Amino acid sequence: MRKIFILIILIISSCTSQKQTKGKSTFGIVIHGGAGTILKKNMTDEMEKMYLRQLEEAVQIGFQIIKNDGNGREAVEKTINYLENSPLFNAGKGSVLTSEGTVELDASFMEGKSLNAGAVAGVKNIKNPISAAIKVMTSSPHVMLSGNGADTFAKDQGLEMVDQSYFITERRSKSLERAKKIDEDNNTSFYSKNELVNYRIGTVGCVVLDKNGNLFSGTSTGGMTNKKWGRIGDVPIIGAGTYANNLTCAVSATGWGEFFIRNVVGHDISALMEYKGMSVQDASRQVLDKVAKLGGDGGVIAIDKNGNIAMEMNTSGMYRAHIDANGKLTAKIYK
Amino acid sequence: MRKIFILIILIISSCTSQKQTKGKSTFGIVIHGGAGTILKKNMTDEMEKMYLRQLEEAVQIGFQIIKNDGNGREAVEKTINYLENSPLFNAGKGSVLTSEGTVELDASFMEGKSLNAGAVAGVKNIKNPISAAIKVMTSSPHVMLSGNGADTFAKDQGLEMVDQSYFITERRSKSLERAKKIDEDNNTSFYSKNELVNYRIGTVGCVVLDKNGNLFSGTSTGGMTNKKWGRIGDVPIIGAGTYANNLTCAVSATGWGEFFIRNVVGHDISALMEYKGMSVQDASRQVLDKVAKLGGDGGVIAIDKNGNIAMEMNTSGMYRAHIDANGKLTAKIYK
Repeated sequence: MRKIFILIILIISSCTSQKQTKGKSTFGIVIHGGAGTILKKNMTDEMEKMYLRQLEEAVQIGFQIIKNDGNGREAVEKTINYLENSPLFNAGKGSVLTSEGTVELDASFMEGKSLNAGAVAGVKNIKNPISAAIKVMTSSPHVMLSGNGADTFAKDQGLEMVDQSYFITERRSKSLERAKKIDEDNNTSFYSKNELVNYRIGTVGCVVLDKNGNLFSGTSTGGMTNKKWGRIGDVPIIGAGTYANNLTCAVSATGWGEFFIRNVVGHDISALMEYKGMSVQDASRQVLDKVAKLGGDGGVIAIDKNGNIAMEMNTSGMYRAHIDANGKLTAKIYK
Repeated sequence: MRKIFILIILIISSCTSQKQTKGKSTFGIVIHGGAGTILKKNMTDEMEKMYLRQLEEAVQIGFQIIKNDGNGREAVEKTINYLENSPLFNAGKGSVLTSEGTVELDASFMEGKSLNAGAVAGVKNIKNPISAAIKVMTSSPHVMLSGNGADTFAKDQGLEMVDQSYFITERRSKSLERAKKIDEDNNTSFYSKNELVNYRIGTVGCVVLDKNGNLFSGTSTGGMTNKKWGRIGDVPIIGAGTYANNLTCAVSATGWGEFFIRNVVGHDISALMEYKGMSVQDASRQVLDKVAKLGGDGGVIAIDKNGNIAMEMNTSGMYRAHIDANGKLTAKIYK
């Protein structure tokens, strides 16, 4: 009888210890490369493959870092650096052009443990804006820097600076020409809803839960084709495009930025989880419904403190990928 | 018996109708002129009187508008215009100077019914930045414009433009000299906590509940003395320095902007009310406690959909005033 009792104790203790180990080492990474009108009929097989391959390569970079006990901050930075360096996505190289034919880049980063954050808006010569956002967080007393001042700060911090020509691709130059033609035809200096929908695809983002149980989020973008007047979207706004809080989740958004600012999307998802006990997926869906109700669209990726994820959108597609703690990779384009 | 019954019905119906009328016409306005280390021992009687008189004059402007069935948007705009035009406060004329001796102004505005919003960041020649923030909301497809582009937009919209010299006062020039001296003495290009506390007093804000039951919020500032690198604080960030939602409340914040961004102060107060049923005062206190926990300080003003207000701070003072639906005016400086 006593032996059986000890055996039961041993089994229970073993189960508990396994559970703790499993709980402790839960980790994961989710990325996006923008949400919008992405239809299979408009996509060649070759392009589809190229997008999926780059999404897979990007998400593997961050995954390898956290798998090997690395820091979530580095995982987000290196993953987004890859996407910024790819001309496919609307961030870093390959960013969309402003009405003046230049690029103005936005990025932000947040850590869930400290609620520390950094952001840059409207920068013109920083090769990797997400790295500049992290530098703002770690090496300045500020959260958000903008314009030429932010470029100067990044240069002083030793970040790689490039000429505007580095960012500009033929594809984006043609998009700007098309956008300007539509403006002329419609005799308007604003955008039609159609333009807004099509000219802002490709923002990139990454959320990570690392093995220490810490959450991280980063987002980077070139914004909207033909943008004017120093327009700033949701991407560099902490609480809108980017938010992380160890009590709840890490979120990165992509879509019609104005609606994501007005809905304070990142923080609202977190608040619904913290204050109403919602799951990360239900909260993400509910907040995207609010965005849709006001007339906006887009998508979010999120990961909670237990490794549960959300990859939600109210558009026809979102470039996205995820690797869970078991190494299982998912990469998708359409809804 | 029948007559008594009819009499009772009439009395009940009259009470209900009075109650409804009262409920419908509840309105109110709260303003602030910045929170920080404001101590009676450092204030002359004359200065105290001047601040109180200007707060009273400002809050009366908005109050008269909503009392006469005017729109809350106009009440917020005209009230903040008065504070921007006064050299006493750190907004518009009398704003603090950047490290280059220039002014860079931020402002934002939000309406609780539509969740529409507008903001400008780092503008240099707009006489009244809050009016530009409203124009961004009403006359552009965007929420946030920045830098020279935002100035161009405001000029195109016919807003009054002024030379930088209009904004600059002797008092703020001396503050910049002192700040630069401290930087030199400490051999640092950053700020000490002491500087940050003292060099950012005077942001102005206004929240209104108008007779239609709609909530409005606006905030305007020159930011932080000796600021560099195009620093953007919480003021032009929808969800941080400014937020309004007819479901809950309108909030305007003032304080150490970086902490207010990281805590998404405006939206968090609203979320605690919407999702946890907290009162506007309890929610304001709880969120300021979170700011303090991270090491920041400041204050908020808020008004809810029933006219209840909060004027909370974790600093020694906040310039503030309030008029309720009965016309009762309160103006205070110290905690």
